[in-house]
Amino acid sequence: MVFAEEDVKIESISPYGVARSTVTEKPLSPEDIRKIDAYFRASMYLCLGMIYLRENPLLKEPLAKEHIKARILGHWGSDAGQAFTWMHFNRLIKKYDLDAIFVSGPGHGAPAVLSQSYLEGVYSEVYPNMSEDETGMQAFFKQFSFPGGIGSHATPETPGSIHEGGELGYSISHAFGAVFDHPNLITLTMVGDGEAETGPLATSWHSTKFLNPITDGAVLPVLHLNGYKINNPTILARISHKELEALFVGYGWEPYFVEGSDMESMHQAMSATLEACVLKIRGYQKQARDSKKAFRPRWPMIVLRSPKGWSAPRKIDDKLLEGFWRSHQVPIPAVASKPDHLKILETWMRSYKPEEVFDKEGKLIPELKELAPTGNARMSANPVGNGGQLRKPLHMPNFKDYALPNIEPGISSLPSMSNMAHFLRDIVAKNMTNFRVFGPDETESNKLGEIYSAGKKVWLGEYFEEDADGGNLALEGRVMEMLSEHTCEGWLEGYILSGRHGLINSYEPFIHIIDSMVNQHCKWIEKCNEVEWRVKIASLNILLTATVWRQDHNGFTHQDPGFLDVVANKSPEVVRIYLPPDGNCLLSVTDHCLRSTNYVNVIVADKQDHLQYLSMDAALEHCTKGLGIWDWASNDQGQEPDVVMASCGDVPTHESLAATALLRDLIPDLKIRFVNVVDLFKLIDHEDHPHGMTDREWTSVFTDNKPIIFNFHSYPWLIHRLTYKRPGQINIHVTGYKEKGNIDTPLELAIRNKTDRYSLAIDAIDRVTSLGNKGSSVREKLMNLQIDAKTKAFEDGIDPEFIRNWTWPYPKST
Amino acid sequence: MVFAEEDVKIESISPYGVARSTVTEKPLSPEDIRKIDAYFRASMYLCLGMIYLRENPLLKEPLAKEHIKARILGHWGSDAGQAFTWMHFNRLIKKYDLDAIFVSGPGHGAPAVLSQSYLEGVYSEVYPNMSEDETGMQAFFKQFSFPGGIGSHATPETPGSIHEGGELGYSISHAFGAVFDHPNLITLTMVGDGEAETGPLATSWHSTKFLNPITDGAVLPVLHLNGYKINNPTILARISHKELEALFVGYGWEPYFVEGSDMESMHQAMSATLEACVLKIRGYQKQARDSKKAFRPRWPMIVLRSPKGWSAPRKIDDKLLEGFWRSHQVPIPAVASKPDHLKILETWMRSYKPEEVFDKEGKLIPELKELAPTGNARMSANPVGNGGQLRKPLHMPNFKDYALPNIEPGISSLPSMSNMAHFLRDIVAKNMTNFRVFGPDETESNKLGEIYSAGKKVWLGEYFEEDADGGNLALEGRVMEMLSEHTCEGWLEGYILSGRHGLINSYEPFIHIIDSMVNQHCKWIEKCNEVEWRVKIASLNILLTATVWRQDHNGFTHQDPGFLDVVANKSPEVVRIYLPPDGNCLLSVTDHCLRSTNYVNVIVADKQDHLQYLSMDAALEHCTKGLGIWDWASNDQGQEPDVVMASCGDVPTHESLAATALLRDLIPDLKIRFVNVVDLFKLIDHEDHPHGMTDREWTSVFTDNKPIIFNFHSYPWLIHRLTYKRPGQINIHVTGYKEKGNIDTPLELAIRNKTDRYSLAIDAIDRVTSLGNKGSSVREKLMNLQIDAKTKAFEDGIDPEFIRNWTWPYPKST
Repeated sequence: MVFAEEDVKIESISPYGVARSTVTEKPLSPEDIRKIDAYFRASMYLCLGMIYLRENPLLKEPLAKEHIKARILGHWGSDAGQAFTWMHFNRLIKKYDLDAIFVSGPGHGAPAVLSQSYLEGVYSEVYPNMSEDETGMQAFFKQFSFPGGIGSHATPETPGSIHEGGELGYSISHAFGAVFDHPNLITLTMVGDGEAETGPLATSWHSTKFLNPITDGAVLPVLHLNGYKINNPTILARISHKELEALFVGYGWEPYFVEGSDMESMHQAMSATLEACVLKIRGYQKQARDSKKAFRPRWPMIVLRSPKGWSAPRKIDDKLLEGFWRSHQVPIPAVASKPDHLKILETWMRSYKPEEVFDKEGKLIPELKELAPTGNARMSANPVGNGGQLRKPLHMPNFKDYALPNIEPGISSLPSMSNMAHFLRDIVAKNMTNFRVFGPDETESNKLGEIYSAGKKVWLGEYFEEDADGGNLALEGRVMEMLSEHTCEGWLEGYILSGRHGLINSYEPFIHIIDSMVNQHCKWIEKCNEVEWRVKIASLNILLTATVWRQDHNGFTHQDPGFLDVVANKSPEVVRIYLPPDGNCLLSVTDHCLRSTNYVNVIVADKQDHLQYLSMDAALEHCTKGLGIWDWASNDQGQEPDVVMASCGDVPTHESLAATALLRDLIPDLKIRFVNVVDLFKLIDHEDHPHGMTDREWTSVFTDNKPIIFNFHSYPWLIHRLTYKRPGQINIHVTGYKEKGNIDTPLELAIRNKTDRYSLAIDAIDRVTSLGNKGSSVREKLMNLQIDAKTKAFEDGIDPEFIRNWTWPYPKST
Repeated sequence: MVFAEEDVKIESISPYGVARSTVTEKPLSPEDIRKIDAYFRASMYLCLGMIYLRENPLLKEPLAKEHIKARILGHWGSDAGQAFTWMHFNRLIKKYDLDAIFVSGPGHGAPAVLSQSYLEGVYSEVYPNMSEDETGMQAFFKQFSFPGGIGSHATPETPGSIHEGGELGYSISHAFGAVFDHPNLITLTMVGDGEAETGPLATSWHSTKFLNPITDGAVLPVLHLNGYKINNPTILARISHKELEALFVGYGWEPYFVEGSDMESMHQAMSATLEACVLKIRGYQKQARDSKKAFRPRWPMIVLRSPKGWSAPRKIDDKLLEGFWRSHQVPIPAVASKPDHLKILETWMRSYKPEEVFDKEGKLIPELKELAPTGNARMSANPVGNGGQLRKPLHMPNFKDYALPNIEPGISSLPSMSNMAHFLRDIVAKNMTNFRVFGPDETESNKLGEIYSAGKKVWLGEYFEEDADGGNLALEGRVMEMLSEHTCEGWLEGYILSGRHGLINSYEPFIHIIDSMVNQHCKWIEKCNEVEWRVKIASLNILLTATVWRQDHNGFTHQDPGFLDVVANKSPEVVRIYLPPDGNCLLSVTDHCLRSTNYVNVIVADKQDHLQYLSMDAALEHCTKGLGIWDWASNDQGQEPDVVMASCGDVPTHESLAATALLRDLIPDLKIRFVNVVDLFKLIDHEDHPHGMTDREWTSVFTDNKPIIFNFHSYPWLIHRLTYKRPGQINIHVTGYKEKGNIDTPLELAIRNKTDRYSLAIDAIDRVTSLGNKGSSVREKLMNLQIDAKTKAFEDGIDPEFIRNWTWPYPKST
């Protein structure tokens, strides 16, 4: 397959003319074509109607300026190709009784999807005021991209949509997520050629290496080689046919091409090609299922090269429209000010012959209605598209059965994360078709390897002999690992959006890679809350480990706890952040998150061995409250404290406790209250977040006039932000990661950011004004202890023994 | 190229045995091989030394536990392949007088790079205490992954590095950035096969469509098919040879394969293959340069399939090591506790025969020293690797020449962004080999299209006839557009890291896509500040437009101004955020940013027409101060104000001024001070950021006891965070985007988030306690005005005329 050099200089590929296609069968009769073309026209008419019209929906009157929306919005560019693909698949759904959904990847392609849903009658069933008649059509047109209406993406309001596509790049990973453990489902997935340039999309083609043809369904991608983005040609439309074919062969697919603009031949070509692909998919599935031997076929995919803005006028005022980027958005923008443009629009709209395809009342005529499937077979009505309908609660073992036993607070040192892995293992075992764990190559490194004993890592790539040596790979498994946070997150989103449950685990610093994806998912959920018919789906659970305070050795690039800031900006109806201080709290929090719906839950927990503090019962109580005073670590019982030592996060709690121990040892009469926060949003006002406390509750825990030395896991400013209106807010001194680090010991990293025990104890002394000379001498002692520890760490390359193996209470010998 | 189905089931590909390679020449004599093998052994010995030893660097004594670091850190997995590639390129640098740098993509591969730099003598030149002798070698070993030392990536401390690789995925885009406008440079780029699974890397292979063979240099990628990630096989190592080849053909490259483990034949194969690639590159460049016709060749790339952990013991205790993921990190972790493992390590280290390759003093023997190039030809000494050395200040036109003239504050309505485009256009024109503009398909949409008249969009894909119709594509250009924020950002980073200048423009909501990349760049710059020999590079300039307040029509997915929160968490030595309120401020800020070095500058500015407020002189003064009182909008002259109306961001300023006008109209005796903030970090304490104000300065502007109604562009909490210690902080009421939006008019979007003029005026009234009944009646009036405006917007789909065309001062007629 070494090409001659001249192949690099490619032939010009115009999509114009009679269809050229890999499959040359002609399955459609002239009558079929007549009908399907009418259906296509009906769809295109609706798309233009949505973009332009607020009145005169059936063009019963000559089109006038008054019928046009004051602000014209919406995108035309990809509508034709998307509608074309959808409706040709309808024939196959009916013929082969397929279970299918449609994922719309190209940006702003909602008109295509909405028009299909309306033609299928689903839209009117869901929204009775958008009925299948003139009045309903007018309401349907007007609401599109109109204040108080719906957007130009396949937003949550869109029946059948699990993929909004507002941000590009996730259509393929979402589609795969939806078909995992849905063996009969085919997700017909339109991929924009703009979208295809994004990184997340470019790597997601490799998802086939993680798809089992027996237990999973199939994704049928249609790369929409539309030719243009907003203002540029697309890369994939401007490389040679040979390169394009090689690319998809390389990604592991069998590409089928459908190229052209001539309607009649394109109908035949698309119909035949989609059918060939469906038969291929069914053939591979049958082969694997009959033989009970899973393998990775070269799954079929389609390259549809059709003109951008297909079926629009080719030129207006001598400027290219169809087949050029000008057709991307509103194709004729100035209809209100240019009467000749309004006329062109009217002629264009009438060319779709609305009077032929809709009856006088505005209803699609029966012979066209018959082209669509019925009931849940309609892609816009498939329950997978409203995945909450399919969601079954997880079978959950009792998390208390996994409790770390016999906890002596601050003395027991045990591995929180690998213990929790047993709980996850058994959740996997009890939900073998309903729950998966995702992560970019780090499940083992994150001490969650125990899960593999219930469900191994799915792998449909080649197997080598050495995989037997602890590879934990399997054709059928429950853990999904690919070194692409984007793909893992996209799979998980697709999986829960289609009614199942899951969790992603990742290194804390690199979760920023999917900031934007998580943002978009939060926004999706937030809007779903406003859409009555959307049934709640499982929460998106994000477990962050390999956290900043143990990235001392990986260095500065691996130190970033700022994902919490990104999440905290999202709607309080959607986001939840938990920082369990120990192993039993981690169990309790995880149990809670996995049972919840319609949230994005973030759990931050270190993977190393840790001091343990709470028995299971105490942990459950603590996590239920979200924050609380730890009496066993406090000595202010029955009195006002002199200082509140507060912590949030496991490593910070460890250091805060050590600081408390130091203070109690060195200044026994200092009254210290120790507070730990598990649920970050407890800190915020109850009016700003459902978990928030009232000021009265706040004061009962933190006081309104005592110094609070608050040691936080992440950037300290987040705490200031969350507490800025609290009584006594000026008394809160927050320490956290302040972007200081390199190759350090854990202690040195803490010292650099002033989150270490010595700095915290000194902070307390500096703020308790009553200590006087006593404070000064203790302060000096603490400074010296800090210097000693630091010096020893630098000499040896590790922290001194007494730091590493510190337990509560602090040895009196200091 | 349709494969038979059986091809999908691939042959097992083991890297073991005699080399198999595309190129079969044998350029090396036995003597060459003997020497190069010795050089390789020296390099591998150094890698192990770094990971393990703190003493006994030349193994002059039997290896004992005391010689081993207390904490063993570092990664072995990719070291051999990387060092192997580097040193074979040395021969070609010498033979063909190449100008080359090395980019190390695989994670944690620093030992390979450091060992090469040390062998070349560069390391000792840069760090004289790491001299080329036993003492220096010991120091060199000890500092690696040791507290106070250097990390396991190619960190800024690494001579020759412009790519740390702490976060994976950017090696190819960085490499391309470095060769743009460096026609003689070859960037030898090692790509990890783990890294290759990331989205950003997967799409960056398409960069060839943006590389001009006449004016740009070349990237020679070596995909290191190492086989394993941390705990998993890699996808690309587990697909068939045919698929792998097809993939790179599809991406537009000509893949050359080098596969095997046998040292002698691998030396020949790699040497011959690299030479063939260099000759191909030079051939294409000559062809294009002689003919003066640029074209896109099928550039060569190499697939190097060698065992992970190559040259380690194959098994230890019957567990696979070499050729398996266990060799990823520290290959034999328990040497301190297992004497037999210590012995294995010693035997292994001695197998590299340190006594043969280093003389008694520890210096590389002369016949090996000769293998490396000399002076700046050494890849670790190339000035491109310390790009600040090459940086020339931009030739800047005077930004004042582009001033929006005759500004009547709050009355002139002019397009800030498209005006600024003229300034950028002329910067492009004056710096045709030194400055580029990057952006994902949005330069035109962002109203910066004027730039094309100085430098078009680079496009080496196929050209179609219709491109003449406003395509603005050119083989040689200055604007880089690909629908991948990752690739654009990576190119820009590579471009500035190698000594040039640039700017990326992007839609505000989708800049979150590169949160993590920007984080990493901030961290790089921050550390560079600590490395004495690193010369400052141009700032990374990020221009955000299509901002949240004008995403009313694109809907909720397009509304996210939270990038500022991510940036604000980074080191104050590095980050700068500017929100110019109008066109002349935008010019001034842009000029400032483009002249600066070693910062990440974020500029947020809307692209629509806007009210203008400041003449050029006033703008310059205002931007220089960073914030200030606008006297022309205030009526508290010479007195204490009753309320401070403050704003940051162009749309928020517009609404704050409108609120001020309403208040002045309705309550003429209310004393209002109007403050605008351009430089966000002015708000922070001067001890926390170099731009910060003292409390005294703060009070002189904001007062310490008057209500402050602060209208902010982004999430309001950021202002609380920045000002939490300020005098009178509890008086600050901040409005901003609160994650409320859908399809709205601009006014409705503002009202939903309470950033509109009416809400702001009401906020002021609610906080000025002295107003009494007068306040109540005005409040009611404002509420009614708000409802009227909202109702009209909902009916018409656009905001009412008086809102859209509002100017200062507010019409008295309200």
